[in-house]
Amino acid sequence: MTYCVGMVLDKGLVFMSDTRTNAGLDNISTFRKMTVWEAPGERVITLMSAGNLATTQAVVSLLDERSKSPSERVPTVLASPSMFQVARTIAETMREVIEQHGDEGQRSDSPFGATLIVGGQIAGSPPRLFMIYPEGNFIEAGEDTPFFQIGEMKYGRPILVRAYDPAMAFEDAIKLLLVSFDSTLKANLTVGAPFDYHCYEADSLRIGPHGRIGMEDRYFQSVSKDWGDALKDALDSLPAFSFPKKGS
Amino acid sequence: MTYCVGMVLDKGLVFMSDTRTNAGLDNISTFRKMTVWEAPGERVITLMSAGNLATTQAVVSLLDERSKSPSERVPTVLASPSMFQVARTIAETMREVIEQHGDEGQRSDSPFGATLIVGGQIAGSPPRLFMIYPEGNFIEAGEDTPFFQIGEMKYGRPILVRAYDPAMAFEDAIKLLLVSFDSTLKANLTVGAPFDYHCYEADSLRIGPHGRIGMEDRYFQSVSKDWGDALKDALDSLPAFSFPKKGS
Repeated sequence: MTYCVGMVLDKGLVFMSDTRTNAGLDNISTFRKMTVWEAPGERVITLMSAGNLATTQAVVSLLDERSKSPSERVPTVLASPSMFQVARTIAETMREVIEQHGDEGQRSDSPFGATLIVGGQIAGSPPRLFMIYPEGNFIEAGEDTPFFQIGEMKYGRPILVRAYDPAMAFEDAIKLLLVSFDSTLKANLTVGAPFDYHCYEADSLRIGPHGRIGMEDRYFQSVSKDWGDALKDALDSLPAFSFPKKGS
Repeated sequence: MTYCVGMVLDKGLVFMSDTRTNAGLDNISTFRKMTVWEAPGERVITLMSAGNLATTQAVVSLLDERSKSPSERVPTVLASPSMFQVARTIAETMREVIEQHGDEGQRSDSPFGATLIVGGQIAGSPPRLFMIYPEGNFIEAGEDTPFFQIGEMKYGRPILVRAYDPAMAFEDAIKLLLVSFDSTLKANLTVGAPFDYHCYEADSLRIGPHGRIGMEDRYFQSVSKDWGDALKDALDSLPAFSFPKKGS
């Protein structure tokens, strides 16, 4: 399993992904699920993936044109004229990969599917964010749906729904996401730290603040520890319930 | 879908269930999913169910011995000598019902399974709480797992994990559960108000405070409304995140 969130803010785009991959519960590894392409001053594109690791890695490799010699490589996503076209190219690449594995060779019980979040900006257009389904179709984030979650999304959703605010600063978005990831972590063993993040600042056309936050990170530890108390205080702040009197 | 929670507190047992039943998204009804049996001064047993409504209703009917004439009925759960035996009787009844539907007559794509929470107290023993799986086996709540959720449990779980406290008052437990149910409600259309609750006070051996809380309930409305603000305040109360400086 996996947990990734992509968010549209007034200030730009925020991405966070976990890094746990498992084939069964006894085969757990750490893999990067976030890929960033940059043509400084012209475009920045961030891709996150949930699902079959072989599929998502093959998609990234094909997009990077790693089948060609290094000197001939121009990643396809760096050549597409628009973010819509980028999403379409990625979706088509994934569909090809899945079809290939689905039709040929040995069969597997576990599905080859993957779900992707891709967002970024190309000079001349605003930042855009898409979610791509395993079937190859995709949807775009808008005012009504300003963020996408993929993977194990349920545990971490309520806090996002309640606390998301398009006007929030990147720092607050990272805090919110860490709380959402922490809730997920506590409930599902197949989502695990460290977490990769990337904050893309609108119109910068450069990779923004990014990094990796691990379990040993002091800030994450304090968020994880303090959040329980903060939630209890929040509950206490609500009006008290009283049982209706009999006969009333 | 459904959402039910059963909780062990120092003061007794708390139960809450939603009432939405759906066969497809266009066929939504309200059904009671909570059944309480009482032999005043001797025992009180509360049962909640998630899953196939026909199955769970058949289980309750069989437990009530509704196949007999009213004068001959002695609900089986009122005759069992211990709560463990009550759980076993209910589990066996459910297994019978599922097997019957599974082997005979027309087949259906949707499973006949159901998951149950049953808790209560019989004079001479402490209150006990069980979760019964569709397969007919069951587990008991203990110190490490002091509450059970059935149905659509993921959205409402993080707040329970964080804020549950065995020493809490019934009123606070209801408040906590309403927040948990509200989070679920906001995310899954197939969980719906009104919510039924029952607070069984340990050693009372009588039905405790119980009732139904609907969307129009003023207290529920204020919890639902204020919780968003309380969560935002809770987030604000956490230390601010700052991006690591380059080169550090």
